[in-house]
Amino acid sequence: MTAQTRLIDAIRDALGACSLTTDADRIAPSLTDWRGRFQGSASAMLLPASTAEVATMVRLAAEHRVPLVPQGGNTSMVGGATPPSDGSALLLSTRRLDRIRRVDAGAGLGVAEAGVILQRLHEAAAEAGCRFPLTLGSRGTATIGGLISTNAGGTQVLRWGTMRRLVAGVEAVLPDGSIHDGLTPLPKDNRGYDIDQLLVGAEGTLGIVTAAALRLAPAVLGRAVAWVGIADPTAGLALLRRMQRAGDAIESFEIIPGDTLERVLQYLPGARSPLDSVHPWHLLIEAVAATPDAEAPDALLARLLGDALDAGLAADAVIATSEAQAEAFWRLRDSLSAAERAAGPAVQHDISVPVDRMPRFMIEAAAAAEARFPGTHATAFGHLGDGNVHFHVRAPAGADPARWMVEEAPGITAFVHDLVVAAGGSISAEHGIGQMKRDELARLGPPARLAALRGIKQGLDPMNLFNPGKLVTLAPVDGAK
Amino acid sequence: MTAQTRLIDAIRDALGACSLTTDADRIAPSLTDWRGRFQGSASAMLLPASTAEVATMVRLAAEHRVPLVPQGGNTSMVGGATPPSDGSALLLSTRRLDRIRRVDAGAGLGVAEAGVILQRLHEAAAEAGCRFPLTLGSRGTATIGGLISTNAGGTQVLRWGTMRRLVAGVEAVLPDGSIHDGLTPLPKDNRGYDIDQLLVGAEGTLGIVTAAALRLAPAVLGRAVAWVGIADPTAGLALLRRMQRAGDAIESFEIIPGDTLERVLQYLPGARSPLDSVHPWHLLIEAVAATPDAEAPDALLARLLGDALDAGLAADAVIATSEAQAEAFWRLRDSLSAAERAAGPAVQHDISVPVDRMPRFMIEAAAAAEARFPGTHATAFGHLGDGNVHFHVRAPAGADPARWMVEEAPGITAFVHDLVVAAGGSISAEHGIGQMKRDELARLGPPARLAALRGIKQGLDPMNLFNPGKLVTLAPVDGAK
Repeated sequence: MTAQTRLIDAIRDALGACSLTTDADRIAPSLTDWRGRFQGSASAMLLPASTAEVATMVRLAAEHRVPLVPQGGNTSMVGGATPPSDGSALLLSTRRLDRIRRVDAGAGLGVAEAGVILQRLHEAAAEAGCRFPLTLGSRGTATIGGLISTNAGGTQVLRWGTMRRLVAGVEAVLPDGSIHDGLTPLPKDNRGYDIDQLLVGAEGTLGIVTAAALRLAPAVLGRAVAWVGIADPTAGLALLRRMQRAGDAIESFEIIPGDTLERVLQYLPGARSPLDSVHPWHLLIEAVAATPDAEAPDALLARLLGDALDAGLAADAVIATSEAQAEAFWRLRDSLSAAERAAGPAVQHDISVPVDRMPRFMIEAAAAAEARFPGTHATAFGHLGDGNVHFHVRAPAGADPARWMVEEAPGITAFVHDLVVAAGGSISAEHGIGQMKRDELARLGPPARLAALRGIKQGLDPMNLFNPGKLVTLAPVDGAK
Repeated sequence: MTAQTRLIDAIRDALGACSLTTDADRIAPSLTDWRGRFQGSASAMLLPASTAEVATMVRLAAEHRVPLVPQGGNTSMVGGATPPSDGSALLLSTRRLDRIRRVDAGAGLGVAEAGVILQRLHEAAAEAGCRFPLTLGSRGTATIGGLISTNAGGTQVLRWGTMRRLVAGVEAVLPDGSIHDGLTPLPKDNRGYDIDQLLVGAEGTLGIVTAAALRLAPAVLGRAVAWVGIADPTAGLALLRRMQRAGDAIESFEIIPGDTLERVLQYLPGARSPLDSVHPWHLLIEAVAATPDAEAPDALLARLLGDALDAGLAADAVIATSEAQAEAFWRLRDSLSAAERAAGPAVQHDISVPVDRMPRFMIEAAAAAEARFPGTHATAFGHLGDGNVHFHVRAPAGADPARWMVEEAPGITAFVHDLVVAAGGSISAEHGIGQMKRDELARLGPPARLAALRGIKQGLDPMNLFNPGKLVTLAPVDGAK
């Protein structure tokens, strides 16, 4: 009888048959990441229905020395929720922790359990007359627990920050089975290290998040979306700085290269360019009004873009005249990745550099990558205002896709990451480290940071019980396939 | 030869004679806290002039197993910078780390070394056309390193948050002598646990902060200050919520009991009440304009207070018509503590509860304390909008001050802290734990939090080298006198 089997029996004895499943068909979808890059193994998936049940499971897991891999919507981009392939760990799904405990629009706070899907939180906030100002493509699947554990970003980070800034407090089960309850947020609390913030972005390696108190923002009373043609990213950033000086109505500020827009227009049936003129670079800008006495966002954008045209920062601009047109502008932005994929296999990187260095980085890193890997085409697009772009290097025309990815991707990634580190940036802007980037972090992470990560992990989870093999390694574990 | 003496010799050999002092007269002022409650001992005070020198000192201290106590302006309210009394540790003063490395108003960022005094940073920001939006009474003495290590608050927390929110990144020497360099802030960086935030509020127990990247705010273009008479704290909080819905121009929102104001008027020569009418509670409210197109703050306050009078939330209100009058209003607020002190000995508490519970807490906790300790007078005043008040319990008339403090203070503090914990609050809102509140934290801190604090401390500083005996204890150390 293995330790895993003994733990399964102990949990069944303590919490009943519904508290886990050993049905291989039910478990299977959770054993691989959604992009199919990592394959794990686990003989059971735990299904706690309450924080107390999670605590019991953790205490029993510690007793039997069996690691646990927490999993929410399984939308990790870095294999962060896929268990080790040797079957040493059990999965712990948060899907039954799915209550929205409270939405208090007046206090600007909501409390949601870890398994609540982001879209549901959006809806609950809207019903209460407010909003949760973080969104991303996987909002119909991603869960609050996963968003916290990966410090998720999205398209509103410019104005509202990442998940870190939106988390007022966390409830989590720690590796010793104790429950940290941070759900009563205090604006001022100086009782030592900030445990709640430490759990944000910890990728489930320090605690199993069971619920969180989240900041809610006032509902939007109106929005305006503009499309702007510019000469280069430097002009784009100058325009952003100018607009930000006028207040905080700008919520999104995305940059798109001209040739990437061309590919989107070819890819999307019936799509047309918002501007008649041709430009080397484009911006998608969204402004909102959140208070009744705020300037109407379309008037605000018209005024600020008029200034920008006068100042030579923008070459041409148009403001969507209807919600349908605004949606059409966003559809172009949201189709960038798919259009790029359709153009051929590409090595993708989720990277950030200091915002002020990003314009130069976008130009120079693309040129350097194309020079170093002849025939490739490098493109950077995305969250200019956050210093975070998606940096894709596409295979040369005619290359065999599978073979090219196997032979060239690691070298290209190392090359791009080296450029990022040289620019003072991060090899993971919003996706986390998981297992995919673990070795690159070990190669490139500053030694002081790596030592601190290991020290904290060792201090809080000395048995390496929570999500082993992700982020940092304490002991040898099996790698990704 | 003691370990301390050997370390002193080793540091002199490595870094020269100026890198420390053993002159007892020079060291003496640093061996006691400014309120004279704690007395420490140290045979030398290290005086590093650079981050590299701090790193060398830490490596040598680790080698000789001699703890270090970092100290900035020595303005701790909880004995957080006073060394142990057994002479086991050396002091490390940050006074020579006093460069402002950079002020970039455009990017809204400054980089200041740990020993920079807050007032100097204010001046440097003002020269660059922006501001650092945190201030407090000790701004002429307190240093950036100390403000970070205690997660300082002040009177602008309502709008700008505590130091935690204003720190974009930290440079610090960790217990292994490595340098963590977080001075190039990235809005998006998901490479694991947030080391920078972990060092904020860590009271020098995890790292010695040597510099920080700090967020700067646009300069204020105008301000308006109002004095408002209200019925009770509940009306005060309702008024705050109403004003906050109109935007974020409100930077300060302080509550003062009527009898406390009376004492201030008696205490301050020539002071007069801003309102002719008498009220049980008062508010001091400051609004600012930060952008040219923002509503003028006096017009904004007039509009919002007019609404409040109509709605019955305020009984009377006046807006300062000159900067001199605004200063006079603030002088009343800033003299509260001194006036309360002049009225007799009092046990003071720096506490917070969830903002929504604060109005009830202020009334009920004061009544409970007065009932439990007959003859005392309990008063709560301060940062209503932050859920943080200063809660004073004054001795009965005629009590012998010294004797009363020795005999009654511990019991009163335990009683007040128990009420705070029952209300879901914190026994340290802004002053930290240090040595003064360490045992109360051990008594009242939730076990999960205490275990996590110890785990993190153990993981990052296994030799207990940094500021031993503060915040949490790993091994027995000597207590406060």
